[in-house]
Parts: sequence; structure tokens; C-alpha cells
Amino acid sequence: MSLHPDRLFPADERTRAIARELHGRTAGLPLVSPHGHVDPRLIAEDRPFPDPARLFVVPDHYLTRMLYSQGVTPDELGVPSVDGTPSEVDGRVIWRRFAEHYRLFRGTPSKLWLDYTFQEVFGIYKELGPDTADEYYDHLSARLAEPAFRPRALFDRFNLEVLATTESPVDSLESHAALAEVQDANGRRWGGPGGKVVTTFRPDNLIEPDWPGWKERVEELGRLTGEDTSTFDGFLAALRKRRQDFIAAGATCSDHGNATAQTADDPAEAAAIFHRALKGEASEADARAFPAHMLVEFARMSVDDGLVMQLHPGSVRNHNEWLHEGWGRDVGGDIPRATEYTRALKPLLDAFGNHPRLRIVLYTLDETVFSREIAPLAGGYSAVFAGAPWWFLDSPEGMRRFREAVHETAGFYNTAGFVDDTRAFCSIPARHDLARRVDAAFLARLVAEHRMTENEAAEIAVDLAYTLPRKIYGMEK
Amino acid sequence: MSLHPDRLFPADERTRAIARELHGRTAGLPLVSPHGHVDPRLIAEDRPFPDPARLFVVPDHYLTRMLYSQGVTPDELGVPSVDGTPSEVDGRVIWRRFAEHYRLFRGTPSKLWLDYTFQEVFGIYKELGPDTADEYYDHLSARLAEPAFRPRALFDRFNLEVLATTESPVDSLESHAALAEVQDANGRRWGGPGGKVVTTFRPDNLIEPDWPGWKERVEELGRLTGEDTSTFDGFLAALRKRRQDFIAAGATCSDHGNATAQTADDPAEAAAIFHRALKGEASEADARAFPAHMLVEFARMSVDDGLVMQLHPGSVRNHNEWLHEGWGRDVGGDIPRATEYTRALKPLLDAFGNHPRLRIVLYTLDETVFSREIAPLAGGYSAVFAGAPWWFLDSPEGMRRFREAVHETAGFYNTAGFVDDTRAFCSIPARHDLARRVDAAFLARLVAEHRMTENEAAEIAVDLAYTLPRKIYGMEK
Amino acid sequence: MSLHPDRLFPADERTRAIARELHGRTAGLPLVSPHGHVDPRLIAEDRPFPDPARLFVVPDHYLTRMLYSQGVTPDELGVPSVDGTPSEVDGRVIWRRFAEHYRLFRGTPSKLWLDYTFQEVFGIYKELGPDTADEYYDHLSARLAEPAFRPRALFDRFNLEVLATTESPVDSLESHAALAEVQDANGRRWGGPGGKVVTTFRPDNLIEPDWPGWKERVEELGRLTGEDTSTFDGFLAALRKRRQDFIAAGATCSDHGNATAQTADDPAEAAAIFHRALKGEASEADARAFPAHMLVEFARMSVDDGLVMQLHPGSVRNHNEWLHEGWGRDVGGDIPRATEYTRALKPLLDAFGNHPRLRIVLYTLDETVFSREIAPLAGGYSAVFAGAPWWFLDSPEGMRRFREAVHETAGFYNTAGFVDDTRAFCSIPARHDLARRVDAAFLARLVAEHRMTENEAAEIAVDLAYTLPRKIYGMEK
Repeated sequence: MSLHPDRLFPADERTRAIARELHGRTAGLPLVSPHGHVDPRLIAEDRPFPDPARLFVVPDHYLTRMLYSQGVTPDELGVPSVDGTPSEVDGRVIWRRFAEHYRLFRGTPSKLWLDYTFQEVFGIYKELGPDTADEYYDHLSARLAEPAFRPRALFDRFNLEVLATTESPVDSLESHAALAEVQDANGRRWGGPGGKVVTTFRPDNLIEPDWPGWKERVEELGRLTGEDTSTFDGFLAALRKRRQDFIAAGATCSDHGNATAQTADDPAEAAAIFHRALKGEASEADARAFPAHMLVEFARMSVDDGLVMQLHPGSVRNHNEWLHEGWGRDVGGDIPRATEYTRALKPLLDAFGNHPRLRIVLYTLDETVFSREIAPLAGGYSAVFAGAPWWFLDSPEGMRRFREAVHETAGFYNTAGFVDDTRAFCSIPARHDLARRVDAAFLARLVAEHRMTENEAAEIAVDLAYTLPRKIYGMEK
Repeated sequence: MSLHPDRLFPADERTRAIARELHGRTAGLPLVSPHGHVDPRLIAEDRPFPDPARLFVVPDHYLTRMLYSQGVTPDELGVPSVDGTPSEVDGRVIWRRFAEHYRLFRGTPSKLWLDYTFQEVFGIYKELGPDTADEYYDHLSARLAEPAFRPRALFDRFNLEVLATTESPVDSLESHAALAEVQDANGRRWGGPGGKVVTTFRPDNLIEPDWPGWKERVEELGRLTGEDTSTFDGFLAALRKRRQDFIAAGATCSDHGNATAQTADDPAEAAAIFHRALKGEASEADARAFPAHMLVEFARMSVDDGLVMQLHPGSVRNHNEWLHEGWGRDVGGDIPRATEYTRALKPLLDAFGNHPRLRIVLYTLDETVFSREIAPLAGGYSAVFAGAPWWFLDSPEGMRRFREAVHETAGFYNTAGFVDDTRAFCSIPARHDLARRVDAAFLARLVAEHRMTENEAAEIAVDLAYTLPRKIYGMEK
Repeated sequence: MSLHPDRLFPADERTRAIARELHGRTAGLPLVSPHGHVDPRLIAEDRPFPDPARLFVVPDHYLTRMLYSQGVTPDELGVPSVDGTPSEVDGRVIWRRFAEHYRLFRGTPSKLWLDYTFQEVFGIYKELGPDTADEYYDHLSARLAEPAFRPRALFDRFNLEVLATTESPVDSLESHAALAEVQDANGRRWGGPGGKVVTTFRPDNLIEPDWPGWKERVEELGRLTGEDTSTFDGFLAALRKRRQDFIAAGATCSDHGNATAQTADDPAEAAAIFHRALKGEASEADARAFPAHMLVEFARMSVDDGLVMQLHPGSVRNHNEWLHEGWGRDVGGDIPRATEYTRALKPLLDAFGNHPRLRIVLYTLDETVFSREIAPLAGGYSAVFAGAPWWFLDSPEGMRRFREAVHETAGFYNTAGFVDDTRAFCSIPARHDLARRVDAAFLARLVAEHRMTENEAAEIAVDLAYTLPRKIYGMEK
């Protein structure tokens, strides 16, 4: 195995030459990561990474779900169980299991990301497989023990300009506070506004009344802010205060993983639901409606404080009940379903869709809305932008279909540019490399078919990779 | 900028050569435009076009909506407001604003159409942008003052064989009457049956009881026809009479922009709703059901009088409430939504789906139905044809996906061929040029992959561009 | 006409060369046909085929529906009518009608299959059309009279390793019993477990209470098994017994054509519906719910007896009422509709989705679920596999879109490999040839774009064509 310099470019020689040229304009640009899920402690503490299995396999749902799908159990992969049933603890054993099944990933973005990471970050040029598993494990373990492979060193080597993490309003933000105290060799602060690591306001666990522990978190929010969160007004005031804390910790965005894109604009009704929920009397309909109302409340707050909204609905969380019961939330058991935006967003858009201070970035797991809903909305409202293909669609074919379906109606400047959306820190450069190549390949086709000039395409390539994400997600300053 | 002779053809040399050859068969064919929205007064009066901004920018939703989406207001673009608030009146200022934002259109069909029009119709070979805005404006203004750029002169230069406009049953059809009196240099009549400009029967504003002014239009229909439209039978009789008037003005088709594809076949229920609506007592459900019933009534009339039905549901009209309130209906604020055909059309198809006298052309804004519903319906009922990709899908990628998704089930001969569907008269040749190139490119791939012979493809290319629209829309005579 | 050796390969020379190489690995592999609808009497009786029209045209819905869609009536094609109204009896006349309209099939898989069959199976190298219709008819008739064109001879010439047919639980299985008594020249048994022709358990007509004759079939099931099918427990016991009979006749799979993918896991409720249905008191909701409950019952049985479940919902059967009334069920009048899997399958998956003994293969007519639901389910549950593109999607473009949409999330090893799903025995080699070429073309692109190595692609090509269907459908032994 070795990465081909023309990987992900079209085979046709004419188009490939253009893609190569376009990619040359973006390959060296800094990485901007305004939407992701890396743990900020990683950078704040800057300790060596754990063993290769715990770094690459155990926490990566993309990998573990593929292995489950072929009968390898979470226990065999060292995923911690809910009831403490012992699971595999030997990293080398887990790694071997993974290597043995690595062929399952042929053709998947996971393999493209890993192969890039192994080669470009860790300097391994062999194909991973049963025969090379131990050699890999030893090599990776040795590298991970070196200072050059600590998180901050990698951060700089990756040419990361800014990395946004994601925190709940009840998070202490202590890692971000710690980062704000530190400077890098060039005197740039690691945290705080304009810093290298910033936070994102993600209130999901405060707006879903049926999420276990909701009431306790609402109370905790009151303690953190000194507001009386037993009233809806107090709850909103507390959220507003926390947004200021997040902004002080560098946040430029909020992030909303609602089950659907439904919005509703009736504060009195929202207040009534809130009070029913606090009393434990919220119905199922209440539990569905409250997040819809809160999206509009958050839009109202954004118009005031400038946080850019990100919305990514459409996932049936923890669909695989066996996984959920045995190994908890968010271990690879989610499945998408059809998601509607045109009707669902109307209340929010009626209120703020043309407001010059609002920006809302729409993501989807349902690609049928690319041309039918997302592109027309992004191309018809000043507040709306189309977010990068997300999760199952964050892949060469997914990105290609997104561009093909969106650009003719929304153009390129109503799309928000690439985000890596990852918790796998070491995969960040691989993901940006893939996205830049796929966009170069797509634009090269438009040039080769004389639908745009090479100069236009070169400008767009740079905009998609760097200018637009900085601008749309508020990271220009 | 200058148009490349191979534009829109695949980059691969082998396929491109075939596409070039296929396109050569259709490039010179007359343009048939059986579905569009040009104002017939334009041709009837044959006056010079207004200034470039009012010709190209102000009335073109494709352009204004993209500019809104980036914060340019309708006022700044000279779009007339509902309450008479003054908007920009200086055409040159509007044009400069447009030119300044022209980069937003990179990769969109709008830019492909405009660049073609600027070059092929108006003889400008520079790229539009801030630096060339004034030069463009002066050049276009000068051309538009010349007799050769009057509507009828352009009509003939465009090689337009026939152009269908769209009128409401309460329209006077006076422009069409005027056109029927005039002949061109070759003695062909400009209007009337078999003329160069014909009308289309579009009854939307008579079948949606909640459309403001509905009752008044029903009464006006009574006056126009001498029928008693206070009864449902009289209403139907009046519509039947108007269809005869439309046929006398050259109409071969009706056109139906229902919100959904729902049909219903219960005349007694339809009559009951009609009477409730006249009394102002129609419920929301009534307002939704009446158009469904009327589609079947119109099918019944088509079986008698031969008008070809066109159905294009799926648009949430005036979705952008700010635009709607400030600048009125149909100014670029519509957004599509998921649209069902299989169940919805069953009542109509049960009644007439296999009738040799009915033809119904289905369009969609929801491309998920291309392979799932439209192609199976067109390939399974003698009355059904698949219409060209519409509106947001009237684009190189939209057309390609349509062909890819439809031809394997419905073949090519259950598709109705290209329609330009435009109110932008000067863009008509650009739109046909684009469609013919995209079809040539698609067919070239089938030939290059040895899925059909080049002779078969050449025949199909001509059929799609010319033979099929003339035949399916009843314009052969 | 003559088949090009590079047919269905991409035009780009680099990619084509790889596709050619990959296809070389699979072209000679035996054909495995674990899902199809050939009549087993055909092989059991081994009589000469009827005339060309009755062999190729009359029973093939793909062909007759295209002809209906252009106004050729079933009577004109010799399709037997429900009320015995005489239809065309002269095979040559039917054949000429077909040949006259053969151009309708340009670009369709039907034409690719037929052209292959005419050339490769019957040795005709001319293009079918009005001019060659008689020559074709004479040539085909002559071949069909030869012993080498009897079913068993063709079976061996096709290199068919195993062919599964489909039978109802109340079928006598007598053809399969007869086949189990016969050996081929190499001593391999024609029927029975591990034989060349096996059956598949297809219980649709026993689980849809509103299917005419349901109650009689339930009673017949009782007679066949000696169980008391007037109780739900007896009904289940009888089905279990019949599954053993099917397994004895070689079955490795069950096949479920439910209207939707809905599942439900409440045996008490299922029993209540069953008893209401026997009394003729089932509501419409009952009729919809019973198949949902039965899917989970069949999953329960599969966990015990190992039959692999196949589920292909989403067809509105007999949508064309004129066809249905005049010529009966299953004559080409079905139309797909949107089909949901994520929520619908949850009860079944909650019960058995991670069970090591269950395998369920999901097919769809709604390609929007390829990336949104099928791939995530197949890549997230050990029991779930993605079935080959089905019916209207069993085509070059449909297969390409399937691969593009599925492999990035589910990989290749959670797909079940190709099935031909045909009742047209003579088309079997054509269908496998097409699928193997399309997969080779797809994989070649991944190789040409350096997304996988040629060695990996070669392994996958063989797996998709041969290894996976044998393994997933339980035909390895």
C-alpha cells in the first residue's frame, strides 16, 4: 500500500490533470475545523495517546459498527459495557481482531482515512492485515510514545488553524479555560476567542425532556448561572448567560442534533410544556414539541449574540437496542430516516429566515433533500446555508452527490464548506485531504465540460476548503 | 469568456466525439416550445424590449432569489413592492449590482443560459463582472434599440417553430386574437391553431377556492361564457366552452400546477364542495380536495376535446413569507417538498389511464420519484408520459439524473421531450441548446458503453429534441 | 447487431482496461441463482419450449407493460383474459407486433438481455425489427425444436450451479420431488437438498387475509400438515412443518413480498387477528397488521430452522385496474411507492437483529433508502444484508447507483451478491452477464481512482458474483 498522488481524481486524463492543478491550490492551506467532537481535554492535558487499539478502534463507531455487522461483539472489541461485564482489555488482541477484518472496509471512507493516517501521520507504508497486525501495533505504539506525537505537536503538524469542540451548556468548560491560559511558540493562544481550540454550544441534553437526567441538568444550569431555571423565562435567561460563557471560551456556533427539523414559534406553549416537563407530566407530544420551540428560541438568541446555528436532524438514535442496552448511548447504533425541512423549518424561517444577523447551517442524513429542499432553501433565504455531507454521507460518493445536487440551485456560495465532524483527532488531516480532493475532482469535471473556467474553479476550490468555513462559521477574526 | 463548442460534453475523448456527432443532428432543428410562460403581448405588440436590467434581472426569479440568498434585497433589485415602497429605478444601478454578484452563479444553469444569450444573441464575448458591467449595459441597450432585436425578429432568428404561452380561463386571449390576424413573411399565421404562438389552458386560479378572488373569477367565467357558474354543472360547462375558445386560439394542452398530485373522482362530492366554497364555507380539507376532483374533471374533458394534460405539483408556493408580504406572489419564494404520485393519481388512472384519447405529462420537483413512480407509471399506462426535468431540475445534472433514472424503465418514447418552461424569451435558444447538448452527452455514454448503437442514439436525439414534443403535446399538425 | 466484448464498461480507456481484467475473473464462474421464479415443472418435465412469442413475449411483464404503455393491448399480445375473451393466438402475429415495437426498448435492460439471449443462446446476429421478425421467428422456432434447447440441456450449458424456484406453502412440491429422483450426467441430483433445482418458502398468499381464497388456503395448509389451522398455534405449527418439507426439497430461504416492511412482535394480537380473519371479520387495519406480525413469526422460525429471510416490500400490486380486471394478477400493472425500513423493521430487529442464526436480505424498489436506511441497517446489524437492486432497479444504472450508495457505509460484505429474480429461464445468463459487467465497471472506477487496489477489486468481483450469494443464501454446502 502507498497513497497514490492522484487518488480520488477522475480517471480521464484531461479531467485528472485539471483536478491535480485545482488540488494544488488547496493542498497546503491551513485546516479549519469549525464543527467536530474532539475532547478538549486531549489538547488541554497534552498527554500521550493511549495504545493503538484504544486510539483507533474502540471509540470509532464507523469501525466498531462494521465489525458488529459481521458478528464481532463489542466485548471482543473492548467497548466498555453498561453493567461492567468484562470486555477485552488487551489492546494487541483488539488490534489483531480489527486487522483480521480490515478487508470489510474496502471501498469505505474509513479505510481511506486510516490508510492516510497510517502513512502520512505515522509513516507506515504496508497494508494492514492479519500478517502485519503486530508490526503495526509495535510501530504505532513506539510512535505514540514520542513527544512529536502528543496532541499539541500533532495539532501544529496538521496545520490546524482552529478546532471547535462541542460542549453541553452544563459543561464546566474547564479545559477551554485552561487552554486560554496557554500560548503556542508563536504567541497564539491555545484557547479563548480567536484561539486555536474553541467550544461550541450544544444544548441537546437540555431541550429533550425525556433524556434521562433532564431535570437535574436544568437545575444544574440554574446553579451555574444563578438564574431560576424553575421558570421558562429563567431557563431562557440561563441559556443566554451560558452562551456568553461559551462565547468567552471562543464559541462562534451552536450545534443542534434534534431528532427532526421541526420548528415552532409559540413561547407561551413552550413555557407550558417546560413546566409540565419539570413536573414529570410531559406527554410524548410535549417531548417532541419542546425541541421544535427551542430551535426558534435559539434563533432568537442568535440574532442577538451572533452564534451561528447548525442543525443536523434525522437520526434515530440508539436504534440497535441490543447495543444500547449492553453498551450504552452513541456506540454506533443510530440509523437515519426520512427527514423533512420545507414545512418543518417554516416557523423559524418566517421569523428569522431573512434576518441579516442569523446564519443557520443545515445538514442531513437524507440525501433526497439535497436538490428538493436544502438547495432551494439555501438559495432562497439569506439565513440558510447548506452544510457539508454528514456522517454516512461524509464520503467520496456522498460528497460528489451533494455537489451535483446542490450547486445548480444554490451555487457554491450558499454552501458552508467542509467540516470534519470527527472525534478522531488523528484522522483530521485525512478527512480534509479527502474532501479537498473530491471537491477538486468535482470542479475539474465542470471545467473539463466547459461549464466553468479553470480560474473560476480554482477560486471556488480555495473558498470551499478555507474561505467559506472561516466566514460562514464566524471564524475569520 | 467564449462558449466552447464542446461545452457540456463528457471529457472522455471517445465519448465526446460521439456526443459531438449526435449533437450535430439536433443543433439545427427548429425549436418547439409547447410549455412556457412568455407574455403573448410581447409578440403581439412587438415593441422593443426594456432596458437590460428589466429584461434580464428584475423578472427572473432564478436570478433574484440567488441574490436574496446573499442578502441583496428585492428593493435593491428594482422588484416592485406590494405597498408601493419605492425600489431601485435606475436600470444601470440594478445591472451593476447584478454584475457585482455574478460570481454567485458559477456552475448554475442560469449562468450557462445567460452567457449563451449574451454571446449568441447579443454578440458580447467578455465575461460579465463589476469591471464590464457598464460596457455590457451600453452594448445591450444599443442592441435592444435595433429592429433586429424586436420580439418577432428574434422569434424567427431563434428558429422557433411554435411557442405556447399560458393563460387563465378568464383571460381575454386578446393578444392571441391579434396574433391570429397577422402573418409572417412566409405567409404563416402568428397566432391561432397551427400558428407560431399558441395558448395553453391553465385553470389553477379557478380551482383553488382559497386563492384570493376565486369567487369573482368564477363569476367572470360565467360572464365570459354565458353559463350559470353558480352551479357546478354550469361551472363545468363554462370551462368546457372556454377550452373551445382556447383551442380556437391554438391551444393543444392544459397545464395544472396543483399543490399535490392528488386526484379524486366523485362529481357529487366535487359539486358539494363547489357550492360550499361559493358560500365562503369551504373548509381547509375542501380547499385541498377540490383541485383533486377537478383534475379528473379535466381528464374527462380532455378525453372529449383532446387537450393534453400537464401536471406539475410539489411546490410550496410563496414559502418565503417576507418576500410574499413585501413583493407579492411568484417572486422566487417557492420551495419544493416530497410529492407522491403512485397513490395520488390512482383515481384518475382508474378512470382514464388506459384511454387512447388521454395524454397526461407528469413533471416533478422531487427527483426521488423519477425511478420509483414516474418511470413505472409512464412505462405502465398508455396515457402517461414523463415530462422534462422542471424548474430546479432543469439543469445539466438534473437532466442527466432524469435520463439515468427514467430510461431503463420507461424507455425514451414514454418521455415527452424537452420544454423550456420559461418566461425569459431571450433565453429560449440557450435552454434548448443546453438540453440538446445534455441529451447528446447522455446518449453518447450509452453508445460508448455499447449499450446502444450510434444510429439508434442519433434517431433518439432527434426524437427527444423535435419529434416527441411535437407529437406528445399535439403540435404535429 | 453484435455484442461488443467491452459492453457496459466505462469509455475511459484506463478504466475500461481494468474493468476488462476484473470481468475476466468472473466471466467463467458458475451461475448461482438463489432467488428466482422459474416454474420448476419446466426442468422437471424437460419438454421443448413453446413458440418464440409464448417463450419470450407473452409471459414477460417487462415487455408487455412497455407495449401497453404505447397502446398495444394485452389481447393483441396474446395475454389470456380473465373472462376468456379471445386474444391473439398466432405466435407469429404476436412476434411481429413485438418486433415492430422493439425500438421502444432502446436503452432498457430488457433489450440488453434479449440481444444477449438471441446471440449467445440462439446464435442470431441480426438486429430484431420489422424486417427481421419472420427470419427471427423461423430461426428461433427451429432451435427450440432441437434437443440441445430443452430446459435441462440449457441449464447445463448456462453453467448454472443451482437454481431456486419459489413456491407457496400449499404447493405440492411435486416437481421438486420428481427432480430429487433424477441425476445429471455427473451424478449430481437435479432436486432436493444440495441439488441443482431447489425451492423457496414464499408464504405471501397465506399471510394476507384479504387475498381471495385465503381461508381456503389456510384449511388446505391444515390438510397438508395434519395440523389444526383453525387456531393460530396450529397455523404456526403447520407453517413450521411445511418449512421442514421445503427444506427437504432443498430450500435454504424464505421469500416475503409484503406490501410494506412493517413488522410487529405481539403473538397474542396476531392470534386475535387470525381468528377474526377466519371469521371474515378482519378490518382493513387487521389485514395490514397481520403480515407485520407474521414477519416476526417467520424470523422466529428462521432462528430455529435456518431459512434465510428475503424481504422485498414497496410494490402497489395490480395498480393498473384495467389490466387487473381484464387480464388478472401480476401482468405488469404494479407500481412502486415510498417504503420505510428504519422504523418498520425495529420490532423484528429488536427481537432478532443481532442473532447469529438469523439472516435477512432487504430488497427495495425505493432507491432513496439505499444510503439512508438499507446501508446503515446492513452495516449496523449482524442479521441484515442488502439485497441486489430489484425489478425496476435491476439495470445498469440501478446497479451502479446501488453500489455507489451502499458500499461506503455497508462495504461489500454486507451485500448479498447478485440474484437474477427471473421467471424467464432463457434470460438467466444474460442477467448474470450484465450484473458481472456492471460490478466490474464499478470496481474498475474505484481502482482507477486509487480508492482500492486491483487485487482487492478482483477478490471483491469474485465474491459478489459467486462467493457471497452462495454464502449469504446458504448454498455453500
